[in-house]
Amino acid sequence: MTAFYHPIRIYYEDTDAGGVVYYANYLKFFERCRTEWLRAMGHNQTDLLAAEDIVFVVKSVSADYKRPARLDDSLEAGLRLTHLGRAQLQFDQWVDRLNTDGTRETLVTGSVKLACVNLKTLRPVPIPDWLHGQLQPSDAP
Amino acid sequence: MTAFYHPIRIYYEDTDAGGVVYYANYLKFFERCRTEWLRAMGHNQTDLLAAEDIVFVVKSVSADYKRPARLDDSLEAGLRLTHLGRAQLQFDQWVDRLNTDGTRETLVTGSVKLACVNLKTLRPVPIPDWLHGQLQPSDAP
Amino acid sequence: MTAFYHPIRIYYEDTDAGGVVYYANYLKFFERCRTEWLRAMGHNQTDLLAAEDIVFVVKSVSADYKRPARLDDSLEAGLRLTHLGRAQLQFDQWVDRLNTDGTRETLVTGSVKLACVNLKTLRPVPIPDWLHGQLQPSDAP
Amino acid sequence: MTAFYHPIRIYYEDTDAGGVVYYANYLKFFERCRTEWLRAMGHNQTDLLAAEDIVFVVKSVSADYKRPARLDDSLEAGLRLTHLGRAQLQFDQWVDRLNTDGTRETLVTGSVKLACVNLKTLRPVPIPDWLHGQLQPSDAP
Repeated sequence: MTAFYHPIRIYYEDTDAGGVVYYANYLKFFERCRTEWLRAMGHNQTDLLAAEDIVFVVKSVSADYKRPARLDDSLEAGLRLTHLGRAQLQFDQWVDRLNTDGTRETLVTGSVKLACVNLKTLRPVPIPDWLHGQLQPSDAP
Repeated sequence: MTAFYHPIRIYYEDTDAGGVVYYANYLKFFERCRTEWLRAMGHNQTDLLAAEDIVFVVKSVSADYKRPARLDDSLEAGLRLTHLGRAQLQFDQWVDRLNTDGTRETLVTGSVKLACVNLKTLRPVPIPDWLHGQLQPSDAP
Repeated sequence: MTAFYHPIRIYYEDTDAGGVVYYANYLKFFERCRTEWLRAMGHNQTDLLAAEDIVFVVKSVSADYKRPARLDDSLEAGLRLTHLGRAQLQFDQWVDRLNTDGTRETLVTGSVKLACVNLKTLRPVPIPDWLHGQLQPSDAP
Repeated sequence: MTAFYHPIRIYYEDTDAGGVVYYANYLKFFERCRTEWLRAMGHNQTDLLAAEDIVFVVKSVSADYKRPARLDDSLEAGLRLTHLGRAQLQFDQWVDRLNTDGTRETLVTGSVKLACVNLKTLRPVPIPDWLHGQLQPSDAP
């Protein structure tokens, strides 16, 4: 599997009094991208909950902030699955800006580790086989 | 019952690129004040859910924005219960700024109507008697 | 002018522990729709700030909550310009759900009043002629 | 300097449809704690901006999620300054829950690196001497 991208537009709600996007909000963009990646494979999290009683929870996240995004910016959130375990997933994630001159620059890079857990117990459970078989980590870039 | 107040401090998360508090966030401050008012009577929403299977949902809200709040401002959210029905509550709510010179000015005023609903059906149910008896709308100001 | 629509997808960030979209977040959806309406006319707020030193600020908002939106829902935010003054704009705004069976239902309706203000003084100023000429309130539905 | 703590209460705005606090929101709690730490030394960010034209921006963040926080939880955000450079600061940060039985458990731990930058250029500048002299990294625990 190659990288997956999801477009993000910056609104007032995303910005702060520094005139830039608030640092916690890139984690929202990361999550939107993971959700759309899952949806692009034909799944959504509501159905996974209902059918399998599982939910993916974030175990750890890291982010490096290189350049700020601003109001009205047109961004793309990207991800690449880097590790697929029995009950865990790991992603490289990033946010790029699509400049009006056609160039693209990376604003934030990060890494996110998810665990598959039972909704009731919140304890780790294996990713269901039918879903595990569909997920494939990327080859090295 | 007289007015109830809850302190609010403004952080970066609350502001937007206009340099002021984002307009939707005053509804968060309204809710914090309602929650603390309920807690001051000895209740919290988690317990109401667990014990009674009820939850209060917002039916309508209005807000008038008079002056903007800014980063580091010290505010107070206030409320007054104006109507108590069998399954509904109505509040006047507002947010004041406490200025460093000791003066106070009103930034936002509003009104919120809540319904008591069953958690499962989301249909209106009467406010439990023991709670209804504790709630008293304010006299006219 | 007829109604303008902007698609909204519901992510975890939009929901709360009640399992539904948090009530303040519909005001974000209202704002995204106003921003995209302006952009569809060829303007964005960053340019208006830079070129004219003006910003639109919300003077008042009201919202009626009819049905809750949930995780993964596909919504549309809509608006209709209902009043155009020299320094003020008023909109009817709403959020519909696009159900998977092809039906559509209205979840939230509201009304928003904006003022055009100078960025430095935050005092009302006339909407620039070139922009005012482009804006046309809707005829009655 | 020893650890610094700031109380956090969980409201509906902080939670998501999983019934727990949304993962990005712990970064808000981290920031509230850094802001209150600075304020406890007699400074606020608005004044630093006005007096020195400087702002602290986040360069990187990491977080490990151990246990979820829930609605109505009473938390404490903590920090310890671990590195003080000419233009950079590094913190260990964490969020604990204060249980009703008097026990305390750590929910999230993390690390944050800040740079002192000029507000206009967004380029790194030395932390002003008078402020640098006041900041002292903690001794090893």
